[in-house]
Amino acid sequence: MKRIITIFTICLAAFASANAQELANFNFGGRMAPVVSPEIQGDSVTFRFRADYATVVKLSGSWMPNPYGDTIDMTRGANNVWSVKIALPAPEIYTYNFVVDGVSVNDPQNILVQRDGTRFLNMLIVPGERTENYTEAQHRGTVSHPWYDSKVLGINRRLTVYTPYGYEANPKKKYPVLYLLHGAGGDEEAWISMGRTAQILDNLIEKGLAEPMIVVMPNGNANQQAAVTLNIPTTPQPDWRKMQEQYANLPEAERNRAMNSYVVSLCEEIVPFIEKNFRAIAKPEARAIAGLSMGGGHTITASNLYPQLFDYICPLSAAGSATPEQVATLKKAGVKLYFLACGNTDFLFEGSKTLDKTLTEQGLDHIFYVSEGGHVWANWRLYLNTFAPMLFKK
Amino acid sequence: MKRIITIFTICLAAFASANAQELANFNFGGRMAPVVSPEIQGDSVTFRFRADYATVVKLSGSWMPNPYGDTIDMTRGANNVWSVKIALPAPEIYTYNFVVDGVSVNDPQNILVQRDGTRFLNMLIVPGERTENYTEAQHRGTVSHPWYDSKVLGINRRLTVYTPYGYEANPKKKYPVLYLLHGAGGDEEAWISMGRTAQILDNLIEKGLAEPMIVVMPNGNANQQAAVTLNIPTTPQPDWRKMQEQYANLPEAERNRAMNSYVVSLCEEIVPFIEKNFRAIAKPEARAIAGLSMGGGHTITASNLYPQLFDYICPLSAAGSATPEQVATLKKAGVKLYFLACGNTDFLFEGSKTLDKTLTEQGLDHIFYVSEGGHVWANWRLYLNTFAPMLFKK
Repeated sequence: MKRIITIFTICLAAFASANAQELANFNFGGRMAPVVSPEIQGDSVTFRFRADYATVVKLSGSWMPNPYGDTIDMTRGANNVWSVKIALPAPEIYTYNFVVDGVSVNDPQNILVQRDGTRFLNMLIVPGERTENYTEAQHRGTVSHPWYDSKVLGINRRLTVYTPYGYEANPKKKYPVLYLLHGAGGDEEAWISMGRTAQILDNLIEKGLAEPMIVVMPNGNANQQAAVTLNIPTTPQPDWRKMQEQYANLPEAERNRAMNSYVVSLCEEIVPFIEKNFRAIAKPEARAIAGLSMGGGHTITASNLYPQLFDYICPLSAAGSATPEQVATLKKAGVKLYFLACGNTDFLFEGSKTLDKTLTEQGLDHIFYVSEGGHVWANWRLYLNTFAPMLFKK
Repeated sequence: MKRIITIFTICLAAFASANAQELANFNFGGRMAPVVSPEIQGDSVTFRFRADYATVVKLSGSWMPNPYGDTIDMTRGANNVWSVKIALPAPEIYTYNFVVDGVSVNDPQNILVQRDGTRFLNMLIVPGERTENYTEAQHRGTVSHPWYDSKVLGINRRLTVYTPYGYEANPKKKYPVLYLLHGAGGDEEAWISMGRTAQILDNLIEKGLAEPMIVVMPNGNANQQAAVTLNIPTTPQPDWRKMQEQYANLPEAERNRAMNSYVVSLCEEIVPFIEKNFRAIAKPEARAIAGLSMGGGHTITASNLYPQLFDYICPLSAAGSATPEQVATLKKAGVKLYFLACGNTDFLFEGSKTLDKTLTEQGLDHIFYVSEGGHVWANWRLYLNTFAPMLFKK
């Protein structure tokens, strides 16, 4: 027994050294007075940052009127801890960073970090009704990153897949599937990180508001095997103009396939991969497709090229359009939900209004959900939280 | 067709705007002259960082003689881009950051970032024989994060699970399992991030050097549901001293269970969860356990409390020990590989030498692998790359 106690003593010593992974880290932490940041108190939030030699320290945050230009000056206090206390912004997930003598710096006290493209930014989660589904539920689904071999694109490609809580405990149950597509500059990690997909689905399912479902988040960049964080060289972007010339004389169906290789891979490779490797219900009424911006374009293209595949179609702030003929074909195919969403200051709002008009003219029942604001994740989280409860209910 | 071309033009416009996810990001990037960092050229590497108003900019890197104190001064050049060119360190994965007027700043040009506890640090991968298995293989396994309900610990807990390439394509094949445990300050993401487990296994399996296997990386902090990045409150650490008093009069077996609740959960809950939910071979000869530092202690404790469970045992830089009686029991149980590893300057080296002696005295065939250096991830990657090919071969 003495030896077992010795083990504990060593573990205890290791434990005591403040999140230390490597030996040298054992010297870190503990020396400086603890700095807490951000600290929400009532209707205010305080940001703090220690900078011994700085002249000007500012706070930059996505809640500011001009999120990409505005800053708020911070004030030097005891121990060179700079701080600023501001009115708490409305409930939402925001990003922020400090600007120290002109240099962007993350908040070292805040473990919550999002990656937007190539930038890492701290998160500020303001609690409230708007964000109640954006934080961890009691029970959580599994997030996995399988790879599928794409013959269409000639590469092995990474997916993000969410399976709901209970998937492992109910090995005979089959689930419907939402295919959820990111925008330009995003990748297969965008919806799970900035979009809070796992948290939103966990909460909606836990509350009985949404059907337990699988969510598949592919990488929508046809030239990419995986997110840039994986350090796999990305092949050059295809030259769309050249492709248009090259395929100009092909029959339309062939040209569409050639020009839309990612959507072809999604519908002819990813959907079968998921239905083979996960317990998915392989029927149109158990398939939904949604996407934001470029992914909204992919959503519309998929519904145009494969009108029978998905019964639930949700283009969000979409870069895309459909002809009256394409909408008529969709209507005939028996779409169960067409949920079109856009912000009223989005630079793509006109396109969404045009699509709404075409849908109305063709008599395709649909929802045109118009929110405040623009082309931002605050809207895309809201849309997912809004349409996910409508899926697979009919 | 015209409308389809319009979709492409919109997508193209979005694509062109340099990794932009939200509209406002469209204004970012492109304005400043491109800064490349780090740039490896032949036997040198150059770091660059733009700081318009800084007085002193330094480079801090884990390859320096004292990685936690040494820095190298950088020099201001055109456009306020500070830079320093140094001799390329020996092949390995290093971490680094800039120190701008006393403030630690990550390299905004480098997408490769590791989290060590609560700190985010940039990675420098120096290519060479030592690191050839640390970068992406041609074909990659699936990394997933399932959750298991622990009755022993009373919480729902997150795991990291690696399944090898081919797992999905061979739905009848069953695989052996390596349970791979992190150290103090780590969590279920440590081995996959700092340890490069997926890359190492992908490469070893692709080269035919290791058996295709499942790797399970649990969270070894009994009070934690998941890594701190998930924003789930962590319960306070148990007070080991109080527990020792509290359980002092229990029979030894009961006391061991009470004091080792995480190891009990690992062996009685995680192992069955994996063998139920993955295509795992449920036999001792198809189970391996390995762990670093505190996880090395967990490895030894698991082999002491459950001598029949694992045929492959690999304590790495371990905080733990075993009695002659425990080793004798293990020998009797028929261990197939006992791989003990430690750095020759590790603060736990004496403990490993003692364990080596006990193993020798008890006649348990084993490998005592002594490497240069200390209690660092460079060694733990090396150990994994070294012992993984020895698993499940007998």
